[in-house]
Amino acid sequence: MPPGRSRRTSPVSSEFGLIRLLEAQTRHPDRQVYKGIGDDTAILKTSSTEWTLITTDLLAEAVHFDPATSSFEDIGYRAAIANLSDIAAMGGTPRFMLVAIAIPPTCSTAQIQRLYRGMMEAAAPYQVSLVGGDTSASKQGLFLSITLTGVVQPSQALLRSGARVGDRLYVTGTLGDSQAGLDLLRSRRRPALRPAHARFLLARHHRPSARIAEGQWLVKQRLAGAAIDLSDGLTGDLRHICEESAVGAEIIADALPLSPACRAYAAARRLDARQIALQGGEDYELLFTVPRGKQARFERLAGKTGFHFTCIGSITAKRLGLRLRTGTDTTQPLPVTSYEHFLRPS
Amino acid sequence: MPPGRSRRTSPVSSEFGLIRLLEAQTRHPDRQVYKGIGDDTAILKTSSTEWTLITTDLLAEAVHFDPATSSFEDIGYRAAIANLSDIAAMGGTPRFMLVAIAIPPTCSTAQIQRLYRGMMEAAAPYQVSLVGGDTSASKQGLFLSITLTGVVQPSQALLRSGARVGDRLYVTGTLGDSQAGLDLLRSRRRPALRPAHARFLLARHHRPSARIAEGQWLVKQRLAGAAIDLSDGLTGDLRHICEESAVGAEIIADALPLSPACRAYAAARRLDARQIALQGGEDYELLFTVPRGKQARFERLAGKTGFHFTCIGSITAKRLGLRLRTGTDTTQPLPVTSYEHFLRPS
Repeated sequence: MPPGRSRRTSPVSSEFGLIRLLEAQTRHPDRQVYKGIGDDTAILKTSSTEWTLITTDLLAEAVHFDPATSSFEDIGYRAAIANLSDIAAMGGTPRFMLVAIAIPPTCSTAQIQRLYRGMMEAAAPYQVSLVGGDTSASKQGLFLSITLTGVVQPSQALLRSGARVGDRLYVTGTLGDSQAGLDLLRSRRRPALRPAHARFLLARHHRPSARIAEGQWLVKQRLAGAAIDLSDGLTGDLRHICEESAVGAEIIADALPLSPACRAYAAARRLDARQIALQGGEDYELLFTVPRGKQARFERLAGKTGFHFTCIGSITAKRLGLRLRTGTDTTQPLPVTSYEHFLRPS
Repeated sequence: MPPGRSRRTSPVSSEFGLIRLLEAQTRHPDRQVYKGIGDDTAILKTSSTEWTLITTDLLAEAVHFDPATSSFEDIGYRAAIANLSDIAAMGGTPRFMLVAIAIPPTCSTAQIQRLYRGMMEAAAPYQVSLVGGDTSASKQGLFLSITLTGVVQPSQALLRSGARVGDRLYVTGTLGDSQAGLDLLRSRRRPALRPAHARFLLARHHRPSARIAEGQWLVKQRLAGAAIDLSDGLTGDLRHICEESAVGAEIIADALPLSPACRAYAAARRLDARQIALQGGEDYELLFTVPRGKQARFERLAGKTGFHFTCIGSITAKRLGLRLRTGTDTTQPLPVTSYEHFLRPS
């Protein structure tokens, strides 16, 4: 989870623009801070050859995870991916992890060990070292706080603020799968769906991927303008890019990358799969921009990688806001709704 | 709170040696990690001129703080000091802070702002920059997670493992004041105590000091063998030094530094003030060792500073365990009890 981003999950946290203001007031100028609050991670100019990324994330039972529908391994895995994904969105390499946990009396040691096992499994491909943490009691509910650091070459990190009018908008992977998987978990009456499709959607919810390699490739090729990871959902996270870059954006509904499983799920539920893709959270795909003049080169080079990139729209003038193109001539404003974890009415 | 230390506050967290084992199993060798889990902070060899310290701490309502007896400013202040104190125990300089918070529906934005204000007030003397965080909802209870980084010169950090037989044991400040302050807060019938004494003890509980300058001075003079900060209480934290250094220790009961207020409190309650000093937690003083051969030099140089250091005992052979000297000839084993926050019976 990016520093300073508030999840709109309570009357209080929705007012956290106020806290950001307070933070800004209390901050003194610090020459080592290249980017503080307001991006996927902070960027610290810690040496002349390497800058440090750092992000922290606090996950609460019944808000971000539910042991009734997720195994402890999966809860740990997803929590680690949420942080790895923030490093991916900067184009960085993850390095060190710290895990603090508050444990209610209802949790067993075996459950907590499974949680750690899931976290370490998610982090294992990246040679991330667990270097610290804290364990404490909780009167009620399990709380999990992960801090992850990473590194990036000086001035190379992908910022939210790098989008310019005319840039093309891209995403990795497919969208909406995690939301569809979560909806499946929470349904009393599951829709008729092929077992393989159901398995795919549940896996995408429980075991998402952090797009570390894609982020690093974008940095290396110097082809991306701005980037963010999709934790709040496409609409919500695109809004962050637009705010930080002072631009608008237009998404082409028919261009949104959808998995066959998500399409089948939407059909079974008589929903518009594109709506799930627009609003569903926690896909942990990357959303990024490519300047118009670099698009041909990007497409050519991307074709040689095994990565899955899809152009889903473009950056427009700020005054046009966020719009959705549904036909050849029809655009409409994108509603401001965003993914709200478990507290979201469903 | 040091990485990997478990607060003995629940049946689960008391078994967290198991988690430490799991962490050790899943860790791969990492040349940049000078010290991972098992000290006050992790130590990372991030550059040839400067090493990075990092620590994280998760504080839970009704376990570590109680809004019924502490203001939100004080809760924030104390939380920041707990982390600053971990950097102090390494002899480091604090640098960057991240704050993640899970907010229950019962908390107002104004209260959360006061919490932040308290944190920033504690951090202000050290030019610490708040560079990130996360806000989220909590179904029940306020949870606060702070991550703090610091820096230290390569190979200069004070470790828990540096104590040797014959070393002298020292502490900063006075001990037991925070515990006495907490007891005052929680008493239905307050003992007869001068208002100045009561104010002093409450201030020591609500607004403890992080001994940053003392830690840095010890590093600069190269006079300390091992160090730790007193969060669990003298007995509990001395045990950590003894475990990490594979030594025993003897404390001289009559040498324990006691404030007049703590003495007055103990007298009013018919308690032994030395017992409060031995077991009371959250003083955030430093406990450190000075090799016998350096003691004279230490005493001479320390006398020129404004710092308050007291020799309270010495390091002994491991087989002797932890002992308390109460008379000229009498020693007894120190009980294993440690400070257990609010869940401790009182």
